[in-house]
Amino acid sequence: MMTKDDVTMMILKAKKTAGLTWEGIAEKIDMSPVFTHSACVGMNAFPPAKAEELVKLLALPQEAAQVLAESPNKVFAQTVPTDPCIYRFYEIVGVYGPTLKALIHEKFGDGIMSAIDFEMSVTREPNPKGDRVKVEMSGKYLQYKAW
Amino acid sequence: MMTKDDVTMMILKAKKTAGLTWEGIAEKIDMSPVFTHSACVGMNAFPPAKAEELVKLLALPQEAAQVLAESPNKVFAQTVPTDPCIYRFYEIVGVYGPTLKALIHEKFGDGIMSAIDFEMSVTREPNPKGDRVKVEMSGKYLQYKAW
Amino acid sequence: MMTKDDVTMMILKAKKTAGLTWEGIAEKIDMSPVFTHSACVGMNAFPPAKAEELVKLLALPQEAAQVLAESPNKVFAQTVPTDPCIYRFYEIVGVYGPTLKALIHEKFGDGIMSAIDFEMSVTREPNPKGDRVKVEMSGKYLQYKAW
Amino acid sequence: MMTKDDVTMMILKAKKTAGLTWEGIAEKIDMSPVFTHSACVGMNAFPPAKAEELVKLLALPQEAAQVLAESPNKVFAQTVPTDPCIYRFYEIVGVYGPTLKALIHEKFGDGIMSAIDFEMSVTREPNPKGDRVKVEMSGKYLQYKAW
Amino acid sequence: MMTKDDVTMMILKAKKTAGLTWEGIAEKIDMSPVFTHSACVGMNAFPPAKAEELVKLLALPQEAAQVLAESPNKVFAQTVPTDPCIYRFYEIVGVYGPTLKALIHEKFGDGIMSAIDFEMSVTREPNPKGDRVKVEMSGKYLQYKAW
Amino acid sequence: MMTKDDVTMMILKAKKTAGLTWEGIAEKIDMSPVFTHSACVGMNAFPPAKAEELVKLLALPQEAAQVLAESPNKVFAQTVPTDPCIYRFYEIVGVYGPTLKALIHEKFGDGIMSAIDFEMSVTREPNPKGDRVKVEMSGKYLQYKAW
Amino acid sequence: MMTKDDVTMMILKAKKTAGLTWEGIAEKIDMSPVFTHSACVGMNAFPPAKAEELVKLLALPQEAAQVLAESPNKVFAQTVPTDPCIYRFYEIVGVYGPTLKALIHEKFGDGIMSAIDFEMSVTREPNPKGDRVKVEMSGKYLQYKAW
Amino acid sequence: MMTKDDVTMMILKAKKTAGLTWEGIAEKIDMSPVFTHSACVGMNAFPPAKAEELVKLLALPQEAAQVLAESPNKVFAQTVPTDPCIYRFYEIVGVYGPTLKALIHEKFGDGIMSAIDFEMSVTREPNPKGDRVKVEMSGKYLQYKAW
Amino acid sequence: MMTKDDVTMMILKAKKTAGLTWEGIAEKIDMSPVFTHSACVGMNAFPPAKAEELVKLLALPQEAAQVLAESPNKVFAQTVPTDPCIYRFYEIVGVYGPTLKALIHEKFGDGIMSAIDFEMSVTREPNPKGDRVKVEMSGKYLQYKAW
Amino acid sequence: MMTKDDVTMMILKAKKTAGLTWEGIAEKIDMSPVFTHSACVGMNAFPPAKAEELVKLLALPQEAAQVLAESPNKVFAQTVPTDPCIYRFYEIVGVYGPTLKALIHEKFGDGIMSAIDFEMSVTREPNPKGDRVKVEMSGKYLQYKAW
Repeated sequence: MMTKDDVTMMILKAKKTAGLTWEGIAEKIDMSPVFTHSACVGMNAFPPAKAEELVKLLALPQEAAQVLAESPNKVFAQTVPTDPCIYRFYEIVGVYGPTLKALIHEKFGDGIMSAIDFEMSVTREPNPKGDRVKVEMSGKYLQYKAW
Repeated sequence: MMTKDDVTMMILKAKKTAGLTWEGIAEKIDMSPVFTHSACVGMNAFPPAKAEELVKLLALPQEAAQVLAESPNKVFAQTVPTDPCIYRFYEIVGVYGPTLKALIHEKFGDGIMSAIDFEMSVTREPNPKGDRVKVEMSGKYLQYKAW
Repeated sequence: MMTKDDVTMMILKAKKTAGLTWEGIAEKIDMSPVFTHSACVGMNAFPPAKAEELVKLLALPQEAAQVLAESPNKVFAQTVPTDPCIYRFYEIVGVYGPTLKALIHEKFGDGIMSAIDFEMSVTREPNPKGDRVKVEMSGKYLQYKAW
Repeated sequence: MMTKDDVTMMILKAKKTAGLTWEGIAEKIDMSPVFTHSACVGMNAFPPAKAEELVKLLALPQEAAQVLAESPNKVFAQTVPTDPCIYRFYEIVGVYGPTLKALIHEKFGDGIMSAIDFEMSVTREPNPKGDRVKVEMSGKYLQYKAW
Repeated sequence: MMTKDDVTMMILKAKKTAGLTWEGIAEKIDMSPVFTHSACVGMNAFPPAKAEELVKLLALPQEAAQVLAESPNKVFAQTVPTDPCIYRFYEIVGVYGPTLKALIHEKFGDGIMSAIDFEMSVTREPNPKGDRVKVEMSGKYLQYKAW
Repeated sequence: MMTKDDVTMMILKAKKTAGLTWEGIAEKIDMSPVFTHSACVGMNAFPPAKAEELVKLLALPQEAAQVLAESPNKVFAQTVPTDPCIYRFYEIVGVYGPTLKALIHEKFGDGIMSAIDFEMSVTREPNPKGDRVKVEMSGKYLQYKAW
Repeated sequence: MMTKDDVTMMILKAKKTAGLTWEGIAEKIDMSPVFTHSACVGMNAFPPAKAEELVKLLALPQEAAQVLAESPNKVFAQTVPTDPCIYRFYEIVGVYGPTLKALIHEKFGDGIMSAIDFEMSVTREPNPKGDRVKVEMSGKYLQYKAW
Repeated sequence: MMTKDDVTMMILKAKKTAGLTWEGIAEKIDMSPVFTHSACVGMNAFPPAKAEELVKLLALPQEAAQVLAESPNKVFAQTVPTDPCIYRFYEIVGVYGPTLKALIHEKFGDGIMSAIDFEMSVTREPNPKGDRVKVEMSGKYLQYKAW
Repeated sequence: MMTKDDVTMMILKAKKTAGLTWEGIAEKIDMSPVFTHSACVGMNAFPPAKAEELVKLLALPQEAAQVLAESPNKVFAQTVPTDPCIYRFYEIVGVYGPTLKALIHEKFGDGIMSAIDFEMSVTREPNPKGDRVKVEMSGKYLQYKAW
Repeated sequence: MMTKDDVTMMILKAKKTAGLTWEGIAEKIDMSPVFTHSACVGMNAFPPAKAEELVKLLALPQEAAQVLAESPNKVFAQTVPTDPCIYRFYEIVGVYGPTLKALIHEKFGDGIMSAIDFEMSVTREPNPKGDRVKVEMSGKYLQYKAW
């Protein structure tokens, strides 16, 4: 059986050969770059129609479409990520986590931001002192139920 | 000696007594709510002038201004945060970490988003299907130096 | 300032003195026993009106009502719980976790059961071979958003 | 020698080819979906007769029946599960563990719910505000022996 | 409120003053030494009548009887025990765990030895080559339920 | 070179083919079932003569006798065992560890039970309320040397 | 696809065959020895032109140049390094970490030394009492932004 | 008895009151700032004469001199430091550890840099693109003995 | 009740006041310095007569003698010791552990060195190239029992 | 490329075939048994001449000599060793670590025993009550530098 890992390998190879970018792929299948990359590396499931489009775009075997649409088992192996680019986000959660909680509480009440009904983008913000990485997250507010 | 923890306790008490919000406090000292909360709970250092303003606003003892302006030792005790509101952000870093890295690489080159030259905001996004939490981060792009 | 821990201590003492049960307390304030216990030990926030009722029922100081209605910081100190009664539930998550995921996927699609819009009950199931503990959980299904 | 992992792979492949669901398989061998899935992925042992039925249903090699009936070594590799769907159950144990213990104590005495003489179901609960996942667990109450 | 720890301290002090042994105490209240010690250090709950006897025997305050009969929260702080006397038992579980499982399986079927409906004793076995520690455990066999 | 793991695989296969039990094998080579299983899965070394007998009994290649008699490197990969049957023993060490220590101290003095000059058995104890697993351990008492 | 690990293996082999040193290689491609080694073992990305030079110098396949210029995923598997040569640096961070922080704070303000805009060298310092290892690090000072 | 922690508190207070810097203190007792800070926070032992000078300089009680000269127990509580300023050095050890080892090996042979016969400095390096933190370490090379 | 920690504090104070060394104390009570220090810091139990001698020597309260003779609970809080002096011994066990095992096996058979029937000394070995620390351990060989 | 692991396998095979002991091999190449074993299993580097002698003695391929003389990467995978023979040494470091530190301090000053300029031996000590394992370590004393 073809696995999510197998398909990721095929995508990376096809992408390299075709000289595509994640933004380019995302645009062609009309999805966001964040979700597209995430589903291509097996951390999300494509809607079936999008999986079909991607398979056509990259000329992957037909079975790959089914695999890309399967619900993945999300495993992140490192409790504390070591890559500096990812660690900085872990650090932000550590340093600002209580602040995020306090402000969500103040603006909404006793609840959380959903990580499921959630979307995110990464953009390049031009800046004379050096361009900046802008990350925008939007998640549905979920109120704790009291019963 | 007065510690950062002592001052945090004083602030929480004064805030409760005065019926203030973090947004309200931030506005009065003309700083962002995220940074204001973060510095009030001892995870950041206020610029001295802002520390003075806060001390006046909340009628804290004068020594508190100096303490609020000191460089803090940032300790986050839980490697994996257990509070659901904070855990969701940890989960986002775990699930989307490789995606953030790939897109930063694609848009900028081999580097990272700074967590030091960094700012963040939390806003309420009205939505007919249920309001959403919007988190925006902006950090300077830092290119790996090759030497 | 009065903390959640302080209030928990007061509640445990008042409950012991009055010879009340959690079920009894819950019934008097018209909430479920699970939520009532959970909020009394500081793992959930009472709706303000319910906090007021509880404070009256147990003759706690007025400040306690405000504390009981505050959003708590949910900390569970043991990554693997050692108490046998709690460990068995941890074991169930370990053994049946992949099964819960597979069946949720089969019945709903790619998503999860919310632990926020969530309720739970514990009942005693009479059984001639020995009574049984029945635990019922109900959480809103949340579909992963693809964007 | 054929291992539990080998048999799981065969089952997943046969299930996919035949377009079966876990519910469908469970119904055909007259067992619950939870136990059926769990035993198919090697976390429980089928009673020999059920193993035979499954082997016939999915046309697996005869040796598989013996393997499916063997007592498995239950290993769950992640101390804290990272998949969001499974993590939510871990979170529930963390947040409500002391509550489950307190209510079991109140209703039964000093003891626990068995995770061995145990059964569980997952059902879809229709709800106008969004359908809900219902999980029901029933385990024999075991009283601590004092001797 | 008096805690389990408070009562343990009182017992240790009274035992020292009176020059009693655990065996002696156990005999006087007609329980086993293992259970008696375990409940005295807060890892088990005495049946109420036995708690009363112990309180009388050691002249503890009356409130202690209620505390000794409460269901304890069993916390063992060290994942790997460091005391050599306790570590050896941990080592035995590590080295012989798979053997215990295989033999229980062979003699009983797919199930476990209960640690709840369980009793244990420690005796001194005279031996010309050096006396031996004999530990006997007896726990009810629990068969995995298939449903 | 043939490894301990290779030989374990051969033994498990031969045992299955011949329809033998661990008790049966142990009896044939006149050793205890616990030690026999333990040495067969590579956690102990057979005395050379016993290794020869086992090799003949199961018709293993001659080199296996030498391997079975080698001193093994005892590795137990899980700090906290997850299989419920083994976990219960870990739990017993956690809950009753201080009790075992206190009673050994009371009966012998300042020392430990050896896990090296050690033997163990598992037997089935008939009981009208449900048969019981009986585990008996006997280890030489070792007194701490003071010098 | 050729991976970073594949290329590292090729480089180590070519280096051994040619009898080169890291210093020698670094000099030939006009980069520092620290960066050269680091990029050769996959912990940094070569600028494309330097990757080309290295590929020519060591007669590697052309595809290797592209791989050497890719942004690596920096994984360091040991949380506490066990090799004594590397551990000593970990120890220095543990012992002198608070000192480094205090002196950076004193000389610069509330900020850190960048590990991205960073360079390092290792040199041999002759000394009559035994030569010394000199390690020099230089990283851009980054001031915490207050906003 | 006065502890190292007590003395550290006294020093921090006296330093604040007198408006001294670590550099200033170090200069007055003619030692390096790194060693001075490190010994003041209890991670190193002052030579007795220097301890005396420090005690005089800051008008500490006489007993403090003896305490400052005692061999400390060096405990660093966080396996992975969370403060960003210290974490960056941990990251450098993770990313460049194998490189440091390879270059030390190349320049010296099979051995390590001592962290005991060791010294370090921190200086500010002016730079038009932003000043830089310069850290210099020098430790005696120790060759592995072969015997 | 007086604890082991209380007595350790008294001993350290008395030792400091009297200007004694561990060697000096050990000699006066005719025991080895290693065992004497170890029992004084609560990691071993003094034989009652020696406890009496020590109490007299240092003029401790009489109750201390009983405490010093009690069996201690040996807790070492750091899994990996951070103090460099202790870490080096941990490193030796890590690097040479398999070697110690192989040579014990070669010289004795399948068994271990006892850490209970065990003694150790530390001496200063004069050496023109720098004096050396000599550590000698002697523990009874214990043969694995086969049964 | 031949690795250290490859060479270790060759040595173990040749040693078995030739019926040699570690002591015998060590004597033939005129090195200590501890160092010889350690370097043969890849935890130390042989001096080139000794590597050549070993290669000749065991008739290994010529490339092995170069590999045996390379500086190894010392990795010990288990933070807490599980093999009982090795664990006992870990336990000794845990129990007697503070004692070793105190006595080294008393005899030498503020410093440590080197684990690099270090040697060790294992001998069999005849004893009528049972032979003993004698382990002797000698490491250069290294004084902390104050600067």
